[in-house]
Amino acid sequence: MSGGHICRNPRRQECRGQRSKMCSAPVHDILLCNVPVVLGIRVKTGVDVRCSEICSSSTVKALIMAVDRSDQNVLHYEHTQEESAPLREDARHRRYTSERSASLKVQEYEKGRGVRRQRPWAVCCRRVFLSWMGADWIFLMLLGVSLALISFLMDVFIFLFTDAHRFLYHLSESNVMLQYLTWISFPLLLMLFAAGLTQMLAPQASGSGIPETKIILRGVIMKEYLTLKTLVVKVISLICVLGSELPVGKEGPFVHFGALCAALLCKFMSFFSDVYKNEARNLELLTAGCAVGIGCCFAAPVGGVLFSIEVTSVFFAVRNYWRGLMSAVFGILIFRLLAVWNKEEETIMALFPTKFRLEYPFDLQELPAFAVMGIVCGFGGALFVYLNGQIALFVKKQKAMKNFLLTNCFIYSGLVSVFISTLTFPPGFGQFMAGQLTQRDSLISFFDNRTWSREGIVEDFHPDDHLSAWKHPQANVFIILSVFVFMKFWMSALSITLPIPAGSFVPVFVIGAAFGRLVGEGMATLFPDGFETEDAVHPIIPGAYAVVGAAALTAGITHTISTAVIMIELTGQIRYGLPILIAVILSNIISQNLQPSIYDSIIRLKKLPYLPELGWGHQEKYNLHVGDFMVRDVRYITLKSTYRDLLKILRTGKLKKLPLVKSEDSMVLLGYVERAQIRTLLQQHAQHLRELVDEERRHASEVSREVHFQRSSEESSGSSAPPKPALKRSPVTETDTDLHKKFSIKNLFCGDTQSVMIEDDSDTEDDVTLRELKEWEGLQLDEQVNFNNCKIDPAPFQLVERTSLHKAHTMFFLLSLDHAYVTSIGRLIGVVSLRELRKAVEGSLTDEGLKLRPVLASFQDCGTGANNFKTEKSDLHKLLDPNPSDQ
Amino acid sequence: MSGGHICRNPRRQECRGQRSKMCSAPVHDILLCNVPVVLGIRVKTGVDVRCSEICSSSTVKALIMAVDRSDQNVLHYEHTQEESAPLREDARHRRYTSERSASLKVQEYEKGRGVRRQRPWAVCCRRVFLSWMGADWIFLMLLGVSLALISFLMDVFIFLFTDAHRFLYHLSESNVMLQYLTWISFPLLLMLFAAGLTQMLAPQASGSGIPETKIILRGVIMKEYLTLKTLVVKVISLICVLGSELPVGKEGPFVHFGALCAALLCKFMSFFSDVYKNEARNLELLTAGCAVGIGCCFAAPVGGVLFSIEVTSVFFAVRNYWRGLMSAVFGILIFRLLAVWNKEEETIMALFPTKFRLEYPFDLQELPAFAVMGIVCGFGGALFVYLNGQIALFVKKQKAMKNFLLTNCFIYSGLVSVFISTLTFPPGFGQFMAGQLTQRDSLISFFDNRTWSREGIVEDFHPDDHLSAWKHPQANVFIILSVFVFMKFWMSALSITLPIPAGSFVPVFVIGAAFGRLVGEGMATLFPDGFETEDAVHPIIPGAYAVVGAAALTAGITHTISTAVIMIELTGQIRYGLPILIAVILSNIISQNLQPSIYDSIIRLKKLPYLPELGWGHQEKYNLHVGDFMVRDVRYITLKSTYRDLLKILRTGKLKKLPLVKSEDSMVLLGYVERAQIRTLLQQHAQHLRELVDEERRHASEVSREVHFQRSSEESSGSSAPPKPALKRSPVTETDTDLHKKFSIKNLFCGDTQSVMIEDDSDTEDDVTLRELKEWEGLQLDEQVNFNNCKIDPAPFQLVERTSLHKAHTMFFLLSLDHAYVTSIGRLIGVVSLRELRKAVEGSLTDEGLKLRPVLASFQDCGTGANNFKTEKSDLHKLLDPNPSDQ
Repeated sequence: MSGGHICRNPRRQECRGQRSKMCSAPVHDILLCNVPVVLGIRVKTGVDVRCSEICSSSTVKALIMAVDRSDQNVLHYEHTQEESAPLREDARHRRYTSERSASLKVQEYEKGRGVRRQRPWAVCCRRVFLSWMGADWIFLMLLGVSLALISFLMDVFIFLFTDAHRFLYHLSESNVMLQYLTWISFPLLLMLFAAGLTQMLAPQASGSGIPETKIILRGVIMKEYLTLKTLVVKVISLICVLGSELPVGKEGPFVHFGALCAALLCKFMSFFSDVYKNEARNLELLTAGCAVGIGCCFAAPVGGVLFSIEVTSVFFAVRNYWRGLMSAVFGILIFRLLAVWNKEEETIMALFPTKFRLEYPFDLQELPAFAVMGIVCGFGGALFVYLNGQIALFVKKQKAMKNFLLTNCFIYSGLVSVFISTLTFPPGFGQFMAGQLTQRDSLISFFDNRTWSREGIVEDFHPDDHLSAWKHPQANVFIILSVFVFMKFWMSALSITLPIPAGSFVPVFVIGAAFGRLVGEGMATLFPDGFETEDAVHPIIPGAYAVVGAAALTAGITHTISTAVIMIELTGQIRYGLPILIAVILSNIISQNLQPSIYDSIIRLKKLPYLPELGWGHQEKYNLHVGDFMVRDVRYITLKSTYRDLLKILRTGKLKKLPLVKSEDSMVLLGYVERAQIRTLLQQHAQHLRELVDEERRHASEVSREVHFQRSSEESSGSSAPPKPALKRSPVTETDTDLHKKFSIKNLFCGDTQSVMIEDDSDTEDDVTLRELKEWEGLQLDEQVNFNNCKIDPAPFQLVERTSLHKAHTMFFLLSLDHAYVTSIGRLIGVVSLRELRKAVEGSLTDEGLKLRPVLASFQDCGTGANNFKTEKSDLHKLLDPNPSDQ
Repeated sequence: MSGGHICRNPRRQECRGQRSKMCSAPVHDILLCNVPVVLGIRVKTGVDVRCSEICSSSTVKALIMAVDRSDQNVLHYEHTQEESAPLREDARHRRYTSERSASLKVQEYEKGRGVRRQRPWAVCCRRVFLSWMGADWIFLMLLGVSLALISFLMDVFIFLFTDAHRFLYHLSESNVMLQYLTWISFPLLLMLFAAGLTQMLAPQASGSGIPETKIILRGVIMKEYLTLKTLVVKVISLICVLGSELPVGKEGPFVHFGALCAALLCKFMSFFSDVYKNEARNLELLTAGCAVGIGCCFAAPVGGVLFSIEVTSVFFAVRNYWRGLMSAVFGILIFRLLAVWNKEEETIMALFPTKFRLEYPFDLQELPAFAVMGIVCGFGGALFVYLNGQIALFVKKQKAMKNFLLTNCFIYSGLVSVFISTLTFPPGFGQFMAGQLTQRDSLISFFDNRTWSREGIVEDFHPDDHLSAWKHPQANVFIILSVFVFMKFWMSALSITLPIPAGSFVPVFVIGAAFGRLVGEGMATLFPDGFETEDAVHPIIPGAYAVVGAAALTAGITHTISTAVIMIELTGQIRYGLPILIAVILSNIISQNLQPSIYDSIIRLKKLPYLPELGWGHQEKYNLHVGDFMVRDVRYITLKSTYRDLLKILRTGKLKKLPLVKSEDSMVLLGYVERAQIRTLLQQHAQHLRELVDEERRHASEVSREVHFQRSSEESSGSSAPPKPALKRSPVTETDTDLHKKFSIKNLFCGDTQSVMIEDDSDTEDDVTLRELKEWEGLQLDEQVNFNNCKIDPAPFQLVERTSLHKAHTMFFLLSLDHAYVTSIGRLIGVVSLRELRKAVEGSLTDEGLKLRPVLASFQDCGTGANNFKTEKSDLHKLLDPNPSDQ
């Protein structure tokens, strides 16, 4: 192979200059001229690893082509400038032929790899399989199945643990002390295991996960939150935590599981189909995942989807709602079928089926009671969020506490577990708060169809029945229920601050149900005969109040309305739909005015990047324009930037996307380049320099070697490095610091050269001294960057200085942006990122401090709002001020 | 009053020039100098109408002020250019004082009007009232109440009509011919009335209204669709149509009613609160309106909200879901309470409550049957949409038919009514299809808890019972049900093409329920003993199949999943939730692959402006950039535009928003101006010219007249014309053609002058001849536009040429844009509107013709998708091509 005519000019600048003119030549064409060099190195040093490190997939492709086209004299890098026009023509033709031959090669290569001698039906099957793999419904089904399995297995294990706990407790009934030890040690062990596992292996698994998922769905990349390790750790520790009967729930973690499963499935499916390389689509599938998670947790498809929408999104695409619902229905079908096959149920039923009467669910006179309950639950929800926040802040602020936690955070979890277990110990204080009941048993008992406050009812409860927990010789039902509500309230608020996987939905649900039952029993005592109509007397059903209370209190802390739908699906009865909805809405209105939702509260406690919402009625407070809060000191690259500039930018800044402007004077925005691209550019340049040096050395020593080229071995090494799309947002394997090390002038390739020099003793006569090399290397770094093979997004989101805060906010929210460039007459003058926007929104609310304004809160105080058009489309003067010559 | 010192220069240019320098002077300051002139004319000619035509509300305010400040020498329009700086200072001071005095005046004036001697508590009450008026919840409650009232009243009237029909029918039982005549004439009369009313008063009221609402919510302004007249006409004609028992529904019109009520309420509330002048917010409230409409129609809050979101939106904000749900719950509460107070119900219940067993709703072996039903319903739904489209196309394409329709379209409605009534005539063919049942009665009978196919059941139906319609001596239940399904299928498809208000949801619902009942009865015949479990035997419940069938078929034609939720809320039982959801999803998958939804089909038949969705799997088909399909020939105005240019643009183009560029050479985009603003600019200029001429004449004739000024009368005329915000998007009272007439050079103000000249015989000696005037007028039109008081939005949405179709599509969808400007380095180079975007999307699908790709359809064929980043972030060459000098 002749390898073409390679330029031997000692000052490579000219050659490079010419090359850069050939802007239409694709990567492999340019790389072609380096083929023999690369091969030469390989043969000379015999280091296979280095070759595969240098050779990108395109290089390998180019190698194959270069070998194949050894008879075509296609390398014309010494054309002069006058010849550039025909050269371009030629390049175009060349590209065409090279692409054709490349595709032929790839086909051949694939054939050789394993598809050899396939039957037509096998090919067809393969195609169908691959197209199926890319189809949405396959993904959604797999997602549903995996979450159903997780949910089912988790339930089974939790049941096993609580059963074992009960068994041990009853076994040691002879001795109260022993019984107490059994009662507290079992949960303690589970808790310690869970806390230790979480802290050591995946701290990201702690907490509910909804706040983090919300942030991820906003487009923010959070490391380690969507990995298999996190999933496994979170599943195991959640089983332990729930098995330890701490008053925490599993709905939050299930939203996280959903997102995790979706992300992992996307990764898995991307092996089969290219569709899964589209990041935007994957983010949408993540949304579906969240919906399925919560749906599978409660066997509530519609409520689950709506809940996940409400807690994770501000704007939502209908197609995601469809996707979520489809996947959730499939998942729940499997989840409930597993329960049937496991002989837990006879047929598919709701999780907590109620059997309230169908013909006259409630009297109109009961509606005010439901409404009042909603209002009280609203206050309760706000109090819960406040309490939880205060506990978390206390733990954070107390220095001694903080130090203790940092070192012994799983001991803290253990202490809390012991404390709570002691209080619930059935023969102790637990007898006044139905301590022996699990959350599930409590819920079932609250939804009971009987009226406990009626005489004789409680006394009739069979000792083996769960309901017997509410029977006490000294205290009546009202006292026990009140104690239950009070104790569980602070216990739950405390428990969800622990560094373990823990949701807040279910415990609050239980408290709400207890409160509802309390109100219901009260109503039944007040109106013992119920309400009369023309035909019959309809007694009050306290169980229905429990249903309403559960929904209302949960709505109060989560700030969602879909808890109503979840409640309906959970109980399998919708006759109380209207009272539930009324209570839920009232609870929302109250609590949204007082506190942020529990998830937003955690977001702020954890200081996660979020974007507060703007209320409609507060336009006058947001009388800001992008120009007022944008960052003016933007790091950018120009078309004339040198490699040294790129290196500097990579070293000093942390921007993920760098704007590319035409020149420093004009500042005309041409597009943006991703950080990874810049890294690639530098790598390519380093590689190129390395090659040049090696080549130089080769010529200088005038040692001619024969190039042995084994095509087959090259092919196999090529196949081991699959082509990577350059613009993938996936975690970069080479970190920036690695790169900096490699590129610091001293290490750049002097290191390499030195090593080469040490290796090849025959080259000691080399006339290129180290000092000369360094100088030359400096010049090389000052070379202008060749952007030809760099992928540039020519259409970044642009705002102008006079874009209002409101408009910018809407765009960021709707399009999930994390930054936008500010231009004036095409010139880049600033950048606005999520951070600036957040500051602007919060800054305009400084009087009240940092305060979110949820929607239902705005019902209270939007009467003073003004027309935002007024502020936006205002005087022309500011607009024209920079150009007074026009007036 | 002295009237100040008014410039007497015969060439007014200089004077204008000075004035335009005073860019900070508000309208009323400028107008002040014309006060005596206007008054002079008024006094002279005594034409009150003309005065009110000239005097805008600001003029009146200015008048009051001018009179009040007759002692302040505030009119300084003869300052020379050198004095402009102090002048500006002075103007600022003057503005301040004038504003203060104006506010004092207004306060005084208000006092005088009726708020005189108010107590502090009254002031407080007033403030609270006004702030309440601006609060969301008040609006939502009013919306809910109004829709509940409409829904309730409509139901009452429809019931009255159908009852009257039955009464007359039974009255004429003696003679079959008479009975037949009664049977067909009653609906015929109602239909003719409805069709006539619709066609004559508000053709916009015809059809379902969902397609139009969808378009309106996309941000497109559709004239006359949201007026009170349309509401009244649609309500009355819908009552008549439904009273005539044509197989059409009311859910579509109710979505329209919701939007109508919301729009009208916004208009009404804007009298009390400025918040309602925010168009974006009003559009959001419209969304809530749609949700309430459908919710009140079915007493299904959650399902209604979800349905309205699915059929009208692609992206939705969670806050709208909350708003809709809140309003819907309130509306439904009122709606159902009205029913209770009207003694229709004992307590709040579902509309079609079912009483299926709670303990074992269905066996797992029934699930495949439900799934198959879903699939069949999917095909059925697609067939229905196809049939409906074919009928509509046939009617449109047949020339004779078209001519006939254009002239006698309400006769056509009558004919269809007679045809359908004849077929349903109970003693005739109607006996084989339960012809005497209304839609409501049919639904109730389908959801019956008994198994009709069992021996003896049908025979036991009491003749007075609705169910007796399914009893026939010759035909069994299967035959009647089959005939019912077949006949109603084409009848409904035909009926909804009529030019009357008609929804397609309910009839399809009934057909689906009948089909489900048929399947259920078949299953019950196949498995007469039902399914055995360990404990007991559970027979099949055909009523549940009817529920599933109804939901599935409706889902098939509307392409929504929320029909499942509506079904659950409608029947008040959720135990069949999972089978319903499974059937609905399968039906959706099938039908979305075959046909667009009925609403999208109507949108395309009516050629409404819509934006098709892009499927995820079809990126390779949309390999287009904005530069490929934008309109390059943009009409624009420059800062140097003359009034003549504005006039030309208004006359020739139809753009709602005109881009403003710096100059024709630079083309730098400064913002956009709304058409209404330009109209206002021209009006102001015209008025100014008129005043100048009058003034000129006054001075030329040198006739001094005494100015009689009656302050009180001016005040009263002022109060009758409330101030209008200039930027309101509300229908413009003055049409463009009117304006053109007024502004055509001949009519501009020569007409006025002539009339003045004819009236004032004393002015015949006037030295300003007509010809001179025309010349001067021409010069005035060539004057540069004064944009000082023009509202300019400085931040229009901008795209660049290389923005991909995908990105542009997403932005248009998310931000509900109807156009965006394309800029290159700040220069305006094109515009993209909804139309271009649609063409681009459709054009790239030409192989398959015009085809929408709904989401669930993409489940089938998205395996071939590619990464859209590849096409977007591609070669730099195109980007740099226009600037080769940089390389």
